[in-house]
Amino acid sequence: MSDFKPACPGFEHRVRESFARQSLMTTLGARMTHVVPGEVHIELPFSAALLQQQGFVHAGAITSVVDSACGYAALTLLPDTHEVVSVEFKVNFLNPAKGARFVAVGRVFKAGRTLSVCSGEVTAFDGDAKKSIALMQTTMMAVAATPSAV
Amino acid sequence: MSDFKPACPGFEHRVRESFARQSLMTTLGARMTHVVPGEVHIELPFSAALLQQQGFVHAGAITSVVDSACGYAALTLLPDTHEVVSVEFKVNFLNPAKGARFVAVGRVFKAGRTLSVCSGEVTAFDGDAKKSIALMQTTMMAVAATPSAV
Amino acid sequence: MSDFKPACPGFEHRVRESFARQSLMTTLGARMTHVVPGEVHIELPFSAALLQQQGFVHAGAITSVVDSACGYAALTLLPDTHEVVSVEFKVNFLNPAKGARFVAVGRVFKAGRTLSVCSGEVTAFDGDAKKSIALMQTTMMAVAATPSAV
Amino acid sequence: MSDFKPACPGFEHRVRESFARQSLMTTLGARMTHVVPGEVHIELPFSAALLQQQGFVHAGAITSVVDSACGYAALTLLPDTHEVVSVEFKVNFLNPAKGARFVAVGRVFKAGRTLSVCSGEVTAFDGDAKKSIALMQTTMMAVAATPSAV
Repeated sequence: MSDFKPACPGFEHRVRESFARQSLMTTLGARMTHVVPGEVHIELPFSAALLQQQGFVHAGAITSVVDSACGYAALTLLPDTHEVVSVEFKVNFLNPAKGARFVAVGRVFKAGRTLSVCSGEVTAFDGDAKKSIALMQTTMMAVAATPSAV
Repeated sequence: MSDFKPACPGFEHRVRESFARQSLMTTLGARMTHVVPGEVHIELPFSAALLQQQGFVHAGAITSVVDSACGYAALTLLPDTHEVVSVEFKVNFLNPAKGARFVAVGRVFKAGRTLSVCSGEVTAFDGDAKKSIALMQTTMMAVAATPSAV
Repeated sequence: MSDFKPACPGFEHRVRESFARQSLMTTLGARMTHVVPGEVHIELPFSAALLQQQGFVHAGAITSVVDSACGYAALTLLPDTHEVVSVEFKVNFLNPAKGARFVAVGRVFKAGRTLSVCSGEVTAFDGDAKKSIALMQTTMMAVAATPSAV
Repeated sequence: MSDFKPACPGFEHRVRESFARQSLMTTLGARMTHVVPGEVHIELPFSAALLQQQGFVHAGAITSVVDSACGYAALTLLPDTHEVVSVEFKVNFLNPAKGARFVAVGRVFKAGRTLSVCSGEVTAFDGDAKKSIALMQTTMMAVAATPSAV
């Protein structure tokens, strides 16, 4: 993973600025905590507004943050003429999403000019305990950035 | 699809009551609009609070509603001693999620005692126009209902 | 599904000729039985050479034929300057693959210029009985045909 | 990965003996080359009998060996009263399957009593060169071993 090279020098600023435009992340209460070439972390604190029927965080909220983490991991490697959309993803849920906070790590597994394959994992933290709760495998596509989105 | 039989007569009440406990659905603004044996619809109105960086609804919000639609479709066929959790899902995104509202349809493809396979589709509506925007294939698992959740 | 239009008039010949070059299909004993715009069927007879440890047909053999069925369904809609490769697929196994023959149906769900999303299903037949055994959701990509492959 | 403990002492013999019953592996020419708790390798030499239309090894053959590698990785951790079936898998294809031989590595990511989640990767080797060609994420299920299969 360590040999990824960003395509544009201002990649971190660009990723953080794009993330700030994702209003869903604000609605969920997610924060971007780590941005390096090919890897992005997003943290989601527990909130009573994000639950499923048993009181755990809903699979959809967990998926939202790991999807954004994977998409932005792919974006770190693209020239600023392009942005990223999700072609598809697959997520396995490994344990109930309970904890004080959840950290989604998105990593580029194979970078391509058009399609990139990323791996994502979400870990739940509760005091000193931590547990892997979700695993994602996803295809991201580079698309020409629209003027308003640059 | 039409030959599915609900395992308990109060299945619709049970499904709607469980859905009402999913605080994420309230946060997103989603409503359950249709519940029959083996099929559930959830509607999500467009909201500026649910977007990705280009101004379309975030893939995670779309996934959240179609995941719940598939899970509740599976629940319509289970005895009230059990509830449903998502084992895994895979979603393809077919078109940008733009529109005034989005309807997620979850259908049971194969009902099993422990594992059920469901198909989900999300359609965007804008005036008279409609477009399929997401396709889900998912495995749901029946788990013993916890006392507090019954 | 019925409104798909083939991009070139000789699409059926082209699909069958390409299938004939897939030596794995010959090795497995598979035959292409139906080719219309957006839909292709491939039949696999039971064979003692294709089994897993319990005596059922191996998931990989079932996947091979439904992958080819989906890929060729996508190819029916492409100009003859392009061919198709599998970007990714996801398969759920619904019942043990036992029967005298297996029919894989691949259908285009959404045709795109570069990426197409297809759905596949494999049904086992045994005398008068039939059972759905596998469900596929897949992304296919159009790539420029190499001279030797045209 | 290194902290996996096999559930029965004869796990390697059991895994190899089961693999030997998978006639599809013999048909493809695959060999099991490595068996440790939670991880299994299967090697597939190039063969002209396994190709798709462009002369690369067919995605279905690659999937077959990595599916078996993941399933047997899960089996290393199960008591000998149980065996493993594939619930579902998802595979991304990263590069054309060309090379002299292909090594599929299956690893248990999360071991469960009923469901296990495994990751698989296939690498193509050609002389000194190697390239990752496929990535799998899969759900395996433990089922009671049938008498004849024990």
